[in-house]
Amino acid sequence: MNPDIPIPPKLYAGKTAATDASIARVIADARNDAFQTLQDRLATISDVSAAAAVLTWDRQTYMPEGGVGARAEQLATLSRLAHELLVSSETGELLERAGKHEPGSDEAALLRLARREYDRASRLPARLVAETSRATALAERAWIQARESSDWSLFAPHMERVLALKQEEASHLDGEHPYDTMLDRYDPGSSTRRLRGMFDALKAGIVPLVRGVSARLGEDRTAPLRGDFGEAAQEAFGRDVITSFGYDWSKGRQDRAVHPFCVDFGGPGDVRITTRFDPGLLSVGLFGTCHEAGHALYEQGVDPSYSRTPLAGGVSMGVHESQSRLWENLVARSRPFWSHFHPRLRETFPGVSGDLETLYRAVNSVRSSEIRTEADELTYDLHVLLRFELELALFEGGLAVADLPTAWNAKMEEYLGIVPENDALGVLQDTHWAIGLFGYFPAYTLGNVLSVQLFEAAVAGRPEIIPEMERGEFGALLGWLRENVHRHGKKYDPDDLIARATGRPPDTAPYLRYLETKFGELYDGA
Amino acid sequence: MNPDIPIPPKLYAGKTAATDASIARVIADARNDAFQTLQDRLATISDVSAAAAVLTWDRQTYMPEGGVGARAEQLATLSRLAHELLVSSETGELLERAGKHEPGSDEAALLRLARREYDRASRLPARLVAETSRATALAERAWIQARESSDWSLFAPHMERVLALKQEEASHLDGEHPYDTMLDRYDPGSSTRRLRGMFDALKAGIVPLVRGVSARLGEDRTAPLRGDFGEAAQEAFGRDVITSFGYDWSKGRQDRAVHPFCVDFGGPGDVRITTRFDPGLLSVGLFGTCHEAGHALYEQGVDPSYSRTPLAGGVSMGVHESQSRLWENLVARSRPFWSHFHPRLRETFPGVSGDLETLYRAVNSVRSSEIRTEADELTYDLHVLLRFELELALFEGGLAVADLPTAWNAKMEEYLGIVPENDALGVLQDTHWAIGLFGYFPAYTLGNVLSVQLFEAAVAGRPEIIPEMERGEFGALLGWLRENVHRHGKKYDPDDLIARATGRPPDTAPYLRYLETKFGELYDGA
Repeated sequence: MNPDIPIPPKLYAGKTAATDASIARVIADARNDAFQTLQDRLATISDVSAAAAVLTWDRQTYMPEGGVGARAEQLATLSRLAHELLVSSETGELLERAGKHEPGSDEAALLRLARREYDRASRLPARLVAETSRATALAERAWIQARESSDWSLFAPHMERVLALKQEEASHLDGEHPYDTMLDRYDPGSSTRRLRGMFDALKAGIVPLVRGVSARLGEDRTAPLRGDFGEAAQEAFGRDVITSFGYDWSKGRQDRAVHPFCVDFGGPGDVRITTRFDPGLLSVGLFGTCHEAGHALYEQGVDPSYSRTPLAGGVSMGVHESQSRLWENLVARSRPFWSHFHPRLRETFPGVSGDLETLYRAVNSVRSSEIRTEADELTYDLHVLLRFELELALFEGGLAVADLPTAWNAKMEEYLGIVPENDALGVLQDTHWAIGLFGYFPAYTLGNVLSVQLFEAAVAGRPEIIPEMERGEFGALLGWLRENVHRHGKKYDPDDLIARATGRPPDTAPYLRYLETKFGELYDGA
Repeated sequence: MNPDIPIPPKLYAGKTAATDASIARVIADARNDAFQTLQDRLATISDVSAAAAVLTWDRQTYMPEGGVGARAEQLATLSRLAHELLVSSETGELLERAGKHEPGSDEAALLRLARREYDRASRLPARLVAETSRATALAERAWIQARESSDWSLFAPHMERVLALKQEEASHLDGEHPYDTMLDRYDPGSSTRRLRGMFDALKAGIVPLVRGVSARLGEDRTAPLRGDFGEAAQEAFGRDVITSFGYDWSKGRQDRAVHPFCVDFGGPGDVRITTRFDPGLLSVGLFGTCHEAGHALYEQGVDPSYSRTPLAGGVSMGVHESQSRLWENLVARSRPFWSHFHPRLRETFPGVSGDLETLYRAVNSVRSSEIRTEADELTYDLHVLLRFELELALFEGGLAVADLPTAWNAKMEEYLGIVPENDALGVLQDTHWAIGLFGYFPAYTLGNVLSVQLFEAAVAGRPEIIPEMERGEFGALLGWLRENVHRHGKKYDPDDLIARATGRPPDTAPYLRYLETKFGELYDGA
């Protein structure tokens, strides 16, 4: 709706029709007026952010080299405008005048989220926002060069600067622990204390498991996935798979990108994924496609009436990652899935050798490796644990930036039994710190934990899920996720959403049981 | 540059280093301060408009169906924000405080353009802008339905409304004739009086030429261009052609679109074209590619220092169209061009029959037809003439919207000797009126006129242009255009630019001579 256009009176009357007493109606009208103006303002902010997302999608997929400089300016401008619209005194006044709404209503949730966003953004001085924007832009460029030449010293001063700015940011915000303010941005309700508990439990469970598997590692099991696979055939196979998941192509598309991602533009009508194919290794493109489709199914399933409001989109990075990992691991790395897709895979790629069991072992093969994004299901969380511990130490002051590479390598050796050959394969591998994403990594592991908790609740609620999967059908699973997770968007906070869906708060126990059972069997009592 | 970031002092000092007396420096500093702030503001507006252009490009090329609604909201929001930033009192104050700059300097041109834009935009009441935006959105939807069912009555009330709003718009602006205010938006300096003169001359010259040719029309000459041509081969051939023109692929790309267009994002670093291929008719994709590449070469050639200022981009629709028509017609429909590309075309498409002369006659075949966008070089301007006369009559009140279809058909018969079978092939064929583009059509013919005037000046200045073309080289031609047209962006007003480039004001005589010579020879003394 174009906010320049006055709202027609009958629409307005409809909104207050439930109120009985005329005096109450007058009050409600005044509130609704401010509420409606606020909604228009939030819709404008949403549109500007959506435009930035389109520009980012284009930059990663189709933009020619010559567009780099101008695109950076355009994105900086859009992000500044969105920020200015959010923190303006007008927004603050509208939030105050928007009144109270029935607890549990969409309106109440919208206000809660808008107030939280406004509060966070308006506590940060404009100078800090601008400096962080500039420092991270410079740091990202330096990081690219540092990684290329595997030279930590090129990046270290930028890391110092970005960390200092994020620490200053934390000082403007409330949290039991300064790191809480970082976590809160990606996973509202999460806390350092709780994550310590989660990671302690996972460390205690996974490190011995990995050691056990390592002792039993024989031949490389991934041979069936290696060969020379045409990209068009890989893409077609992946499309078939995610079409059967329920990915709606009239509301999305798939393109190529060096660093795959999923992106939405403020509503469920256009949710795109990108993929990278490796002609020599089937798993890269296939599981990448399933992973991004998992994110996309979440966004495509959000209540369309939440579009252009703070309620739109997935509720947190952790819950988002639970959806991508659920489809990637619980579904696409499972026996039921492959009992249906194995014959199809061999039809498409006659070069793929081996029976169903060989393939199942191939897609679940474990090996300690240097790069997080290439890690298997079992070792993945140890990569995240390492980053969580290092970030915490940096924030608490117990670790100096200069000592990061040494600390990184020590933890790699302790948890995964390997030391990276160089810093490009170690401390310099991720872009997160360069662009200021402290507190983001834990969401990856939170997602793994929640993926199992949600999947088990889904199967308990709809036992037909597994037999369906064996037939290459996923309607019951998607239906359960839609009903219990997707449609709610950001209406409930993550803990609340998970409790409603599974009857319990987030819990590491099901995830650890799942890993022990799956990899114990795969690696013969590991 | 992020306007949040303060300008470093040395950059600032550099800008005023030319001023001698210290008192003058102080004044200049104060001016520069406002000037710099104004530039930042204009850069922000440019970024928002560029973002809208990216969203539009995406909508026409890759956006899935489900994105339609949200994208319309996003574009409306961006256009509203750009408008609000432009007409705000802050912009007005900055324009007043930005001081005087040396006549002929970039700074002076920037201020002249910014003041003109601000003046036009701020004279229009916000209500009128909003109503026009809504009315044209509704009219465009109605026009699509009306064209599909060839039912004028579905569109007529919307046409009434849009025309009334454009007439109201004219009443807020200054012009010798109300229609001047429409023309001024697309071709600054153009006027109804001058266009009347231009079209009178063209009518007097072209109508008899077309009658002469019609009397001599024998067999259909387009047979060599008809067949079954793979789209990939068509695309590759077109790419080779425009690469030889000088289209820079590191600063652009080519995609498919139903209605081809060229788009830039506020600078020369990313200028994209889109193409529609007809598998049965080679000319559609090939000349469409050359046409859009002509637009793109202009944008790619603008001085990069003009990016994100009002000086960026082509100066007017007429001059822009002169560039697309020059490459499409003067180059790609010429003998020198085909003497090089004919063997290559036959290599690529062995099905293409006939010698060079047969092909030359095929790509220049004339036939009166109903649809402007499919018209040949000779009859094209009569389609534009018809629209110009009808728009003028509508604006002057001498023609009622209800009588438009009858008037249309009468003029088609008079100028082209045919009457459209129905309104979909007649008065409903173009989207321009639905979206409020009154005064836009004349630019197409102005472009044809200027294309010949510029091409002749180029060849006179660099006689090697024709021999180069025969070798498939276009460096001398592009070089002349870059030097005399492209690089200047919007710095000079169109008349000034044309006079600097060709030594004369816009002139129909060379164009008429060109048509008479070319088609006289092709149609044997027509």
